[in-house]
Amino acid sequence: MAFTLEELAGRFGGEVVGDPAQRVGSLAPLDQAGPQQLAFLANPKYLAQVETTRAGAVLISPDDLAKLVSRGARNFIVTPNPYAYFARVAQAFIDLAAPKLQPGVHARASVDPTAKVAATAVIGPNATVEAGAVIGENVRLDANVFVGRGTRIGAGSHLYPGVAVYHGCRIGERAIVHAGAVIGSDGFGFAPDFQGEGDARTGSWVKIPQVGGVAIGDDVEIGANTTIDRGAMADTVIETCVKIDNLVQIGHNCRIGAYTVIAGCAGIAGSTTIGKHCMIGGAVGIAGHVTLADYVIVTAKSGVSKSLTKAGIYTSAFPAVDHADWNKSAALLRNIDKLRDRIRALEAALDEKPQGT
Amino acid sequence: MAFTLEELAGRFGGEVVGDPAQRVGSLAPLDQAGPQQLAFLANPKYLAQVETTRAGAVLISPDDLAKLVSRGARNFIVTPNPYAYFARVAQAFIDLAAPKLQPGVHARASVDPTAKVAATAVIGPNATVEAGAVIGENVRLDANVFVGRGTRIGAGSHLYPGVAVYHGCRIGERAIVHAGAVIGSDGFGFAPDFQGEGDARTGSWVKIPQVGGVAIGDDVEIGANTTIDRGAMADTVIETCVKIDNLVQIGHNCRIGAYTVIAGCAGIAGSTTIGKHCMIGGAVGIAGHVTLADYVIVTAKSGVSKSLTKAGIYTSAFPAVDHADWNKSAALLRNIDKLRDRIRALEAALDEKPQGT
Amino acid sequence: MAFTLEELAGRFGGEVVGDPAQRVGSLAPLDQAGPQQLAFLANPKYLAQVETTRAGAVLISPDDLAKLVSRGARNFIVTPNPYAYFARVAQAFIDLAAPKLQPGVHARASVDPTAKVAATAVIGPNATVEAGAVIGENVRLDANVFVGRGTRIGAGSHLYPGVAVYHGCRIGERAIVHAGAVIGSDGFGFAPDFQGEGDARTGSWVKIPQVGGVAIGDDVEIGANTTIDRGAMADTVIETCVKIDNLVQIGHNCRIGAYTVIAGCAGIAGSTTIGKHCMIGGAVGIAGHVTLADYVIVTAKSGVSKSLTKAGIYTSAFPAVDHADWNKSAALLRNIDKLRDRIRALEAALDEKPQGT
Repeated sequence: MAFTLEELAGRFGGEVVGDPAQRVGSLAPLDQAGPQQLAFLANPKYLAQVETTRAGAVLISPDDLAKLVSRGARNFIVTPNPYAYFARVAQAFIDLAAPKLQPGVHARASVDPTAKVAATAVIGPNATVEAGAVIGENVRLDANVFVGRGTRIGAGSHLYPGVAVYHGCRIGERAIVHAGAVIGSDGFGFAPDFQGEGDARTGSWVKIPQVGGVAIGDDVEIGANTTIDRGAMADTVIETCVKIDNLVQIGHNCRIGAYTVIAGCAGIAGSTTIGKHCMIGGAVGIAGHVTLADYVIVTAKSGVSKSLTKAGIYTSAFPAVDHADWNKSAALLRNIDKLRDRIRALEAALDEKPQGT
Repeated sequence: MAFTLEELAGRFGGEVVGDPAQRVGSLAPLDQAGPQQLAFLANPKYLAQVETTRAGAVLISPDDLAKLVSRGARNFIVTPNPYAYFARVAQAFIDLAAPKLQPGVHARASVDPTAKVAATAVIGPNATVEAGAVIGENVRLDANVFVGRGTRIGAGSHLYPGVAVYHGCRIGERAIVHAGAVIGSDGFGFAPDFQGEGDARTGSWVKIPQVGGVAIGDDVEIGANTTIDRGAMADTVIETCVKIDNLVQIGHNCRIGAYTVIAGCAGIAGSTTIGKHCMIGGAVGIAGHVTLADYVIVTAKSGVSKSLTKAGIYTSAFPAVDHADWNKSAALLRNIDKLRDRIRALEAALDEKPQGT
Repeated sequence: MAFTLEELAGRFGGEVVGDPAQRVGSLAPLDQAGPQQLAFLANPKYLAQVETTRAGAVLISPDDLAKLVSRGARNFIVTPNPYAYFARVAQAFIDLAAPKLQPGVHARASVDPTAKVAATAVIGPNATVEAGAVIGENVRLDANVFVGRGTRIGAGSHLYPGVAVYHGCRIGERAIVHAGAVIGSDGFGFAPDFQGEGDARTGSWVKIPQVGGVAIGDDVEIGANTTIDRGAMADTVIETCVKIDNLVQIGHNCRIGAYTVIAGCAGIAGSTTIGKHCMIGGAVGIAGHVTLADYVIVTAKSGVSKSLTKAGIYTSAFPAVDHADWNKSAALLRNIDKLRDRIRALEAALDEKPQGT
């Protein structure tokens, strides 16, 4: 349960400065770490702590290492991104400590005989895998997970308890889908078939069948109770390494570009395309049938109703202020056309005035 | 797996113009359809495609048919609403292609002996049906569905995996409830029982028991992970043919009028009544104890805090713009009263000025 | 199934005025109650109904009792908070009427042999309890509930169908968690590890392991499909008697103070601290890394982007108005800087004018 610095560098990269045989067995902040622990410096403002830390080794960038007045007998792994390095090492320690699961299908799981389940997969209690589904190597389906007919789950993916993936969907490799997420539910589409108006209206909504699927790339993470609808004709697409938080809604036919992150409670209406490397803030709403360019940032609680064709930061949210003050401003805003009219009247009055008399 | 036009007209209505014995086996767009396929014209802007299509038949309105320069040897089904007709035919093709489910109770379902389950119903793996529940003809309960004691599910309804319907609720016929939806959870009601103020406050919130149910009409569709709370004393009511998208919250004692549609991420607080044929946009919030008239439209991301007594379109959302520009406008709005005061001062100054001198 | 007033006072407090042997078996409004029923007066505006009610007894405050012109032969239980008293009695009647559940583990539940389950607990069909979990006295886990390894559920708590509590979490006593809620899913944290810009960007997001848990106090209620993420290093904390509605998202490392209530569809980003006795309205969004003082009220649909250090009411939401009117106001707001400039120009023009000539 401990690695030498040489082993870490062999696995995660970086250059060892100091004793490559030094062993570390866990992670800790600079000011709390002991001689068997690995610390990291991600923010130069804590540089002084490096000179006093008791850590067995410190993850540090080349620039910060150069700024140290004294290294003492300390050990370092030098890496351009100590924070990402820390994250990777932390995951490795967690994987080592986690209970090893027995591969195989739980006695209370229901797996259709025509489904293909890799021998290394772990299928939990009360999981259901329907006909023709394909479950890849080292996949983990937790309790009560549902995988519909013909759906494919890529190698190394982990679906937490109660996730439902409808029929005809694909999830890539190393995906993480948190509990209660629903993938492949019907898109929201109905043809109006009404006659007459008002109280005399008759007829009804006719459901538009949703025959596309959902195609999810590799390294995607999807939050708890998030919902992603299947496409109407073609697939809804989530590209590689997209990260989606909890309680997010993604409508049918959307395409979310690679590396984009979407924070909790955001909602994206149908047939919208979001570029790569975008950042969608919490509780943002995006209308249907619009396109966002690559590298667009939308700040929390804003609403997007038109396409945003250039990279940049976009906002339409107000911060909460004292309730009474807000109500006064809101009342004036509701009548802002009257303020404009008063300005116009003043301008007209001044124009009429004799000048320079 | 193919129908003659005569068979389609017999089942879905419309008038065949051309060869009633022509067979079609699937659907396709006008510009891609082949001789065994059915296409449709819903938007007159594609009228020219009808004159060149290779489709075996075209769904068309009487008006558009009359506009054609040349029908050639083409076949048509003439119907006032080709889009709705297309949707119905598409559903029929899907139903034909779908695997036939064996009626009956899965060996791993848990059905109380006092529940009544129709012989034609399909009860999936790990579904739970409690005492006194009634499951109608051709109902489909997928994996992990929960139906509480005394709850009734009407004929032809389909509850997708993991849906939970608490005790004492009713769902009408032909309902579709998507995965993870929760119906009949307790309304959010607590009586304050506190004494003292500030740090000296003692006491607690006392739960108000929620003893109503949820009553859902026929032909309702409910989206994935949507929640509908049971009433405090009487039922929360969802009328016939209401369509609700994903991640919508409907509070206790609400009544949603027939044919109303509610888009994703909307939230409706308790004891609110929404009329018939309303359209509630995505992420709309509606306060509790208000009433919306029939035919009200609330645009996406707007907030409704008072009753809307007249049909019409209502809005309170801003579209996102450049972040820096927005912040400037927001700062001026916060001080809009100062702008108003400056206008007043100008008006006063002008009044004091000698006129026409 | 009926109590004497003396028995009620013995159990719930209050002073009997009238016949302590009077029996009541259910609750009803003042104007509908019969001689075997208990009514309550919470709002003095209905005082006159007390003088005509046929109720077997009335819950009333000392002040309101003193205001009665004539008590007749009526019976009362005098209590400072008749509404809370009503809620408690109603719950007692419901508990009496509810079917008695057999303690024990359902034959189709999966309980790890190293988990400790109290003999009085009720573990429902297809529930999963992992290694080392601890399920307290009188706990009720409904169908399809998942309790991860090492998680502890306090005495008297009730987890409704499909609730998922990940590993390493704690829930206090008498908690109510509604269907589909997810507790302990991973917080949303990724370290950027990208090189280059624009189309040339390479690299990826590196997941920050989330190794804290969720610690939930006593008497907490959590709504359907609500999500509460586990902490990154330390626990996400929900203090005693917090009440959370449906579809609420609480990010990692948050702390929600005792007795605070959070209405439906609210979202609280990570590392935010909310004080005690706060009221967070429906669909409110609160940014990460901010602090709200005790007794803060945020009105529905508002957004909080900075710390609120004083008790008070805070708002940033507009009510929906006629769509065309709104669009005019919104256009003027977008150009409010031009209005300000015109006011400035007018002020300058007036200053330049000769005064008093």
